[in-house]
Amino acid sequence: MRQIIYGINPVIEALKAPETKLEKILIARGRKGNLETILQLAAEGKVRVCYRHRDDLTALSKGKPHQGVLAVLEAYEYATLERILAAWKQSGLRALLLVLDSIQDPQNLGALIRTANVFGAHGVIIAKDRAVGITAAAVKASAGATALTPVVRVTNIAQSLDRLKEEGIWIVGTTGDTGTPLFEQDLSSDLAVVIGSEGRGIRPRVLNTCDLVVSIPMAGKISSFNASVAAGIVLYEIVRQRTMKTPIV
Amino acid sequence: MRQIIYGINPVIEALKAPETKLEKILIARGRKGNLETILQLAAEGKVRVCYRHRDDLTALSKGKPHQGVLAVLEAYEYATLERILAAWKQSGLRALLLVLDSIQDPQNLGALIRTANVFGAHGVIIAKDRAVGITAAAVKASAGATALTPVVRVTNIAQSLDRLKEEGIWIVGTTGDTGTPLFEQDLSSDLAVVIGSEGRGIRPRVLNTCDLVVSIPMAGKISSFNASVAAGIVLYEIVRQRTMKTPIV
Repeated sequence: MRQIIYGINPVIEALKAPETKLEKILIARGRKGNLETILQLAAEGKVRVCYRHRDDLTALSKGKPHQGVLAVLEAYEYATLERILAAWKQSGLRALLLVLDSIQDPQNLGALIRTANVFGAHGVIIAKDRAVGITAAAVKASAGATALTPVVRVTNIAQSLDRLKEEGIWIVGTTGDTGTPLFEQDLSSDLAVVIGSEGRGIRPRVLNTCDLVVSIPMAGKISSFNASVAAGIVLYEIVRQRTMKTPIV
Repeated sequence: MRQIIYGINPVIEALKAPETKLEKILIARGRKGNLETILQLAAEGKVRVCYRHRDDLTALSKGKPHQGVLAVLEAYEYATLERILAAWKQSGLRALLLVLDSIQDPQNLGALIRTANVFGAHGVIIAKDRAVGITAAAVKASAGATALTPVVRVTNIAQSLDRLKEEGIWIVGTTGDTGTPLFEQDLSSDLAVVIGSEGRGIRPRVLNTCDLVVSIPMAGKISSFNASVAAGIVLYEIVRQRTMKTPIV
């Protein structure tokens, strides 16, 4: 489904954000006032402006107040697993992939893609079912990373992990406390890191596919991290080990 | 200001969440239907139920639809800096404090307190001005950590850091890329970690107070982390170094 953004200020923000690709701007016919900024930004960004009946805008915003202004986002273009693998091979670097098992919250998804980009991951793999896709909220939370780090949406996560294994990539799962302590695990090979959903963790079928299972050492009473914090810590440890090039004790 | 939660499902969720301390439930006088669960949970949790005129509820929800049901949260009880210092000394552990400079988003604040708890931090220091306090949204995002890890709200962050220094605690600031690479910095002493706001980082006056400044190594095009991801990585590195007890190369 096409994503939309409505209301004067949200549309202005979307026009200003380089990571938000807009297909067109819709303005209610006969609408007057406060359009200068939008029309100017649309002209600068070469975004098409169309005039429609106010009711059409209301239908698109599902009845929410739109102030007669609405932006339609370009459909997000997902990558393919093969394209990500090809780009990795061309990079000459050790593989670093992030696999998200059933992340439901778009803000979390955006933060995860942002973290993947900061650590130079080759791509992010998400599931088609029972998981959120790249929505406008995810694009925003990613701070631009959705336009930089390829995201592939697959039907079957476990099957995609098998495909990665064929390429010699090791699958690292993360669990609460039953895995090897993160900093005791050698993480110098080509890797794909699997992060589970916050409530339920990694699903058993996916966890079974993992070659390594690690846990982040914890000292407090709360025993689980926000998914994007967990991903940030695991990716950091991988980059740390690869940068320091010292053997793990 | 007292925090409120309104609507049948949000109030039921609040009654079920052990970390949400409720002062009372308000029900619109003459309201009928769908109250069994709320009344039963309130009885079990010993939360007082009061009946009020519907207009009083509407005033509290600021006109937002409340379905005749509203919960008033107990005021959050902030700690004092001296109480946190006393608890640290009693713990016999190396100090680990998290200092948040101008975090505005309650969800981020909650996630930060959660991360502080997971790594066993002795307390979290936040500012009174230009920063969000412990709101209902922060309590929710903290996954219960606000009830476990003491949070102190101070008038002047730089002054509080000076107080920590008197106790021999080193202040570690985090910046984008001008600091010592995180894993090359010896982090074995008593520490307070300062995390800045997402947009602007740590304010200059606060950054000047820091004894050490570290940066998380980055490899991608996006050069900043979500604040709670950054905090998670720095706290992880501290716990890693303290656990491994090996000298930094």
